[in-house]
Amino acid sequence: MRGAMLYAPGDVRVEERDDPRIVEPTDAIIRLSATCVCGSDLWPYRGLEPVHGPAPMGHEYVGIVEEVGADVRRVRPGQFVVGSFFASDNTCEICRAGYQSSCVHRVGIGGLGAQAQYLRVPLADGTLVATPDLPADDLIPGLLAASDVLGTGWFAAVAAQVEPGKTVAVVGDGAVGLLGVLAAKHLGAERIVAMSRHADRQKLALAYGATDIVTERGDEGVARIKDLTGGLGAHSVIEAVGTQESMMQSIRATRPGGHVGYVGVTHDVALPGTELFFSHVHLHGGPAPVRRFLPELIDLIVDRTIDPGQVFDLALPLDQAAEGYRAMDERRAIKVLLQP
Amino acid sequence: MRGAMLYAPGDVRVEERDDPRIVEPTDAIIRLSATCVCGSDLWPYRGLEPVHGPAPMGHEYVGIVEEVGADVRRVRPGQFVVGSFFASDNTCEICRAGYQSSCVHRVGIGGLGAQAQYLRVPLADGTLVATPDLPADDLIPGLLAASDVLGTGWFAAVAAQVEPGKTVAVVGDGAVGLLGVLAAKHLGAERIVAMSRHADRQKLALAYGATDIVTERGDEGVARIKDLTGGLGAHSVIEAVGTQESMMQSIRATRPGGHVGYVGVTHDVALPGTELFFSHVHLHGGPAPVRRFLPELIDLIVDRTIDPGQVFDLALPLDQAAEGYRAMDERRAIKVLLQP
Repeated sequence: MRGAMLYAPGDVRVEERDDPRIVEPTDAIIRLSATCVCGSDLWPYRGLEPVHGPAPMGHEYVGIVEEVGADVRRVRPGQFVVGSFFASDNTCEICRAGYQSSCVHRVGIGGLGAQAQYLRVPLADGTLVATPDLPADDLIPGLLAASDVLGTGWFAAVAAQVEPGKTVAVVGDGAVGLLGVLAAKHLGAERIVAMSRHADRQKLALAYGATDIVTERGDEGVARIKDLTGGLGAHSVIEAVGTQESMMQSIRATRPGGHVGYVGVTHDVALPGTELFFSHVHLHGGPAPVRRFLPELIDLIVDRTIDPGQVFDLALPLDQAAEGYRAMDERRAIKVLLQP
Repeated sequence: MRGAMLYAPGDVRVEERDDPRIVEPTDAIIRLSATCVCGSDLWPYRGLEPVHGPAPMGHEYVGIVEEVGADVRRVRPGQFVVGSFFASDNTCEICRAGYQSSCVHRVGIGGLGAQAQYLRVPLADGTLVATPDLPADDLIPGLLAASDVLGTGWFAAVAAQVEPGKTVAVVGDGAVGLLGVLAAKHLGAERIVAMSRHADRQKLALAYGATDIVTERGDEGVARIKDLTGGLGAHSVIEAVGTQESMMQSIRATRPGGHVGYVGVTHDVALPGTELFFSHVHLHGGPAPVRRFLPELIDLIVDRTIDPGQVFDLALPLDQAAEGYRAMDERRAIKVLLQP
């Protein structure tokens, strides 16, 4: 099969790889209908995370079940399924508490490489959620978004305790931030401030329910949020970047007693204890337990209540993955869908 | 009047100070029935916080209202009142959300100095809570504890989302940690692990409801908590120290999806972003909004449902405040009550 490999920073190649096979009796093999490039893939692509290449890439996937192991009971060949970036048993105490991305048996999909034609999904019963029927083609981008960026933005909004009547600020205008806007709208936020300085992303943020756009960053951005909230700060802040600046911007933009939901994979972040202490914020986040939200998100997408697929503004054949990485790196695209 | 002043690290003196007077029409003057030395007073006493001495000391107080300003409506002379370490209007949006210690008009009591015979309390209507009647003498230590350490331990337990059925670990065996144990018991925790290596404190922890004692600290302490929780970590951890070690011990002892309530005033703490991100814990804390809990805590004390006054294991005349600081610094006393 064809699959993307990262050889070194900036060097993505699509090449012939072995077809995946059932290894454990709890595995499933799926034929991918679509996959994509994630903002988090750009960290190693940019050399900001070590690359131990050549390494398979990609952790977002939807597709048709081809084959299942002997112990798989809940999915069967022919079904269209959505999974997420950590395989999870969905039965351990941590999963049952809703933290499937910290499942005691979790397996990272990134190491298996979802930017490919086929994928072995461990713990298939716990990981995969089937759609009621085979979805229409135009629903596939939305379902693919549910696999990570929608689920991650949704988790951020839930972690930030977005509720009716609240003011929400969203730091980060990548796909996760934009879908955090969509989640905040769905969860009933009264006011949603998207922090973005890119016209195309502002436009999508407004389409997804943002009521205000703030272009300033850092201390100036915080001052603008304070201006919009009677000097107090937002009730809820969604952090979808992962840098020291974005974390501090998020904490400082939140009112005492408010909630920061942070999902940008943190890089070189150290939170100053005293400032955090006196900020009085609630801080929660981490790798999103997308599996918790998948059944609800699939329903909302299939019902056409939400349309998260709009974050894909470029679709390319899998063989052009390198161009997809470049387009995202250069911010020519919000998010790139790859067709296997 | 007599009042304690910190001149330099290790140098506390009780000396003649001006009697406080009404400054703002929202002030009250109270004659202190009891005051005390706080663990947080030890930071400047030990030279670990800058001392701009001579500075008045103390922020915990109960007493009788002597006089009120022209705008005070809710307390009157002769009442026995409990307040906390931040005066708050209790009407602003932040107070109404339960974060009175971040009130937009807050005034720190520490700067006024409650280790004294009289105290001016700003924003008296919002700050002070009167007891139903003049309390019996043996209730005064408990009511004094409500002024800070009980309210702080309570907030930590609430911030750590202690609930029936949960396992709670308590890091720190000072008065706040011990009263965190009491709060956890009252809130229905199934198992309460006190982390302490001092026999007298272990004994009080067990009296307050601890089910297990762990004497190890740091990584070994974390390993013991994991052993006690099927490898997962506690659902809730109360952090009542404020050092880098105690914060990391708390975060690492908490299971994914669990809650850390941290109330130890942080000193030289920097939380590593990546570890925090993947820990999946909820983090909340800061200066406790004691005012939120005072009405309930006063009822529980006056009803003799709880007895937080046991944390005072040494009582001294105010004039011997210096000995009180020494006793706490040398860990000869858990907490020292001062009689004005």
